[in-house]
Amino acid sequence: MTDLKEMGRRAASVKLALQGLSEEEKNSALLAAAKRLKEETGEILAANEKDMEAARKNGMSPGMLDRLRLDPGRIESMAEGLCQIADLPDCIGECMEEFERPNGLKIRKIRVPLGVVGIIYEARPNVTADAFGLCFKTGNAVILKGGSDAIHSNKAIVQALRGALAQCGIPEDVLQLICDTDRAVTVEFMKLKEYIDVLIPRGSAGLIRSVVENSTVPVIETGTGNCHVYVDKDADLDMAVKIIFNAKTQRIGVCNACESLVVHSAVRETFLPKLKEALDEKKVELRGDGRVREVLPDCVPAREEDYGTEYLDYILSLKTVDSLEEAIAHINRYNTKHSDCIVTENPEAAQRFLNQVDAACVYWNASTRFTDGFEFGFGAEIGISTQKLHARGPMGLKELTSYKYTIFGNGQVRG
Amino acid sequence: MTDLKEMGRRAASVKLALQGLSEEEKNSALLAAAKRLKEETGEILAANEKDMEAARKNGMSPGMLDRLRLDPGRIESMAEGLCQIADLPDCIGECMEEFERPNGLKIRKIRVPLGVVGIIYEARPNVTADAFGLCFKTGNAVILKGGSDAIHSNKAIVQALRGALAQCGIPEDVLQLICDTDRAVTVEFMKLKEYIDVLIPRGSAGLIRSVVENSTVPVIETGTGNCHVYVDKDADLDMAVKIIFNAKTQRIGVCNACESLVVHSAVRETFLPKLKEALDEKKVELRGDGRVREVLPDCVPAREEDYGTEYLDYILSLKTVDSLEEAIAHINRYNTKHSDCIVTENPEAAQRFLNQVDAACVYWNASTRFTDGFEFGFGAEIGISTQKLHARGPMGLKELTSYKYTIFGNGQVRG
Repeated sequence: MTDLKEMGRRAASVKLALQGLSEEEKNSALLAAAKRLKEETGEILAANEKDMEAARKNGMSPGMLDRLRLDPGRIESMAEGLCQIADLPDCIGECMEEFERPNGLKIRKIRVPLGVVGIIYEARPNVTADAFGLCFKTGNAVILKGGSDAIHSNKAIVQALRGALAQCGIPEDVLQLICDTDRAVTVEFMKLKEYIDVLIPRGSAGLIRSVVENSTVPVIETGTGNCHVYVDKDADLDMAVKIIFNAKTQRIGVCNACESLVVHSAVRETFLPKLKEALDEKKVELRGDGRVREVLPDCVPAREEDYGTEYLDYILSLKTVDSLEEAIAHINRYNTKHSDCIVTENPEAAQRFLNQVDAACVYWNASTRFTDGFEFGFGAEIGISTQKLHARGPMGLKELTSYKYTIFGNGQVRG
Repeated sequence: MTDLKEMGRRAASVKLALQGLSEEEKNSALLAAAKRLKEETGEILAANEKDMEAARKNGMSPGMLDRLRLDPGRIESMAEGLCQIADLPDCIGECMEEFERPNGLKIRKIRVPLGVVGIIYEARPNVTADAFGLCFKTGNAVILKGGSDAIHSNKAIVQALRGALAQCGIPEDVLQLICDTDRAVTVEFMKLKEYIDVLIPRGSAGLIRSVVENSTVPVIETGTGNCHVYVDKDADLDMAVKIIFNAKTQRIGVCNACESLVVHSAVRETFLPKLKEALDEKKVELRGDGRVREVLPDCVPAREEDYGTEYLDYILSLKTVDSLEEAIAHINRYNTKHSDCIVTENPEAAQRFLNQVDAACVYWNASTRFTDGFEFGFGAEIGISTQKLHARGPMGLKELTSYKYTIFGNGQVRG
């Protein structure tokens, strides 16, 4: 079985080397890694074909097969992603705050890497290059545990990336892949507290839950999004249709898609038929409460559990409320603290919604689909945090950092 | 058994009320709580006497008994602590960043409470008032689980504080105490992920380890400090003696006390006798390696485990090194990432140490005892984080907050 502690020690052993790299050295290595990925396209595709063949035999679903599949264009995109990360500013070493105490102590708060980041993900080989790029740029060593269905693809990608590192004179162990596909290894990985500073799970709700429940390493929980759009009595109804249509149907399998509509009773009769007309184009199944069904008779009756479900499908739950307060209470009960939106022309109602809805991102008159590191202008994204500790919402490079206090004295002792 | 989910629901139910409080209302409530503590001194002392009696019967150690014991002065101090928290600025609602995207979306990053904070601590009743004050000021509901040995004291303190809240028209459930002393309840508390946003353990290394290992709620790990002072070859040796004397002996039972001295071989012969002379005054036991014992023949031989031990006692381990690099490597191997110090007159050596030692607080020519929220000027402290996620080092009010993004649009959808 894989010696995880040995991998941990190797990650620890490269910390100083990583810290010693200048911004230019890091960026050159990222560009070299991008080049190498493209040069080794043949090897990577051959490895991916092995994974695809096994996955087809095992009856993997078409959606999963599509995520696993690589082609020259997708490898090109991975390489492009690394080049983009090279273009982003380096925040490590930045002085975040500086203050002096009455006793003369000067205190500087300096941005530093987290140290060693562990990433647990499913059979999406593009995450391999992406996670490496983000962690490396922020001076972190990274240990990856990808889905076993993608093991050959991941090995080939990691080999290319490590080759580029070696070529640049950087210790290859800044990037390590756990090749053992045994589940016990994953569980041990989650307990490698001595060596791993933070663990980021990326993938399905089940994967994330398992990491949260089993890990003794601090975890950043990402992902699940049961996102709501609330159509207020003072909404511009055409805008509301446009926003819901986008949030529900532009891409259904993503965490920032809208899963539930909350509608004020005062507008349901005019609004719901308009909405249905638009969503019919994409054959969205509507599941509504009694008052929705008074207006839309062929709507499926919503059950309690519909309001708590992230469908990731062409399905939308609908709930009628009689007030803004009721809308906020409903959303705070069922949301996953990811992204929720109010559509209204009333600034007071909007501000109240923005204040009181407990979510990483709360929107006034815009689609929830904007919750994304690129759309926020971060230039990169390692995931979307749905917890409140450390980082909330889209996580870019800065969210992969910590800080240390450096304190400058001239012999001060405590009285 | 205590219905923890019901407590969780109650904590959730007061979030909006908490959020609706102005800075003035929060401060008035803190002052009312301080007044009430003083008014109920008699009841609190009577309850504390019950705990003390039981603890004496159970053979509690004198150190622990001292921590459990209350007297009018200590209740006065708790009240004073609440008044000091009232004096600190309110950071909730602050706009931390604001930016506009090319599509016209305006994004504001707003400081918000964490939500519901859980605190697990040992038999120190002063933590009860202190933790309430810090959490309340930052708009967090708090659920406390104190040591069972302090249960009567904690109940009396919580009753006084909740009485003051009620008097101010604030829902008492912003502060709840788990009264059940059954260990199974504590374990269930650590899994109350649905209701608790963060869990902060305060106490011994054993307590903290247990919380880290059992909790599915995000934890902020606080506390253990195996702090080092490194005396460089270019140190001002008198300053080094003064710093180590302070860091080792000013208060021995605290996490920022010095537990280990690392000395450059070039100065050991002149430095160690000076140091011993000073530490002899406090009868500090020295445990050193062979080269230390060449200079100090009656020094106890250090074993490997001495370098990893947080003594919290009048004991100091001593290690000789031949270079700054060796000192840094030794410290990074054995420290708990809390606080470490270099004593040197050489700015290059100092900067290298500050950069390369992996700890929350790294000192140049000052005592490690300054790692403390009050000494840093934060005005308050909920603990000292030894992890890198969320907060590192002394945690004041801001470290009890999170943020949310509020996004202002005019109908934007994602293309």
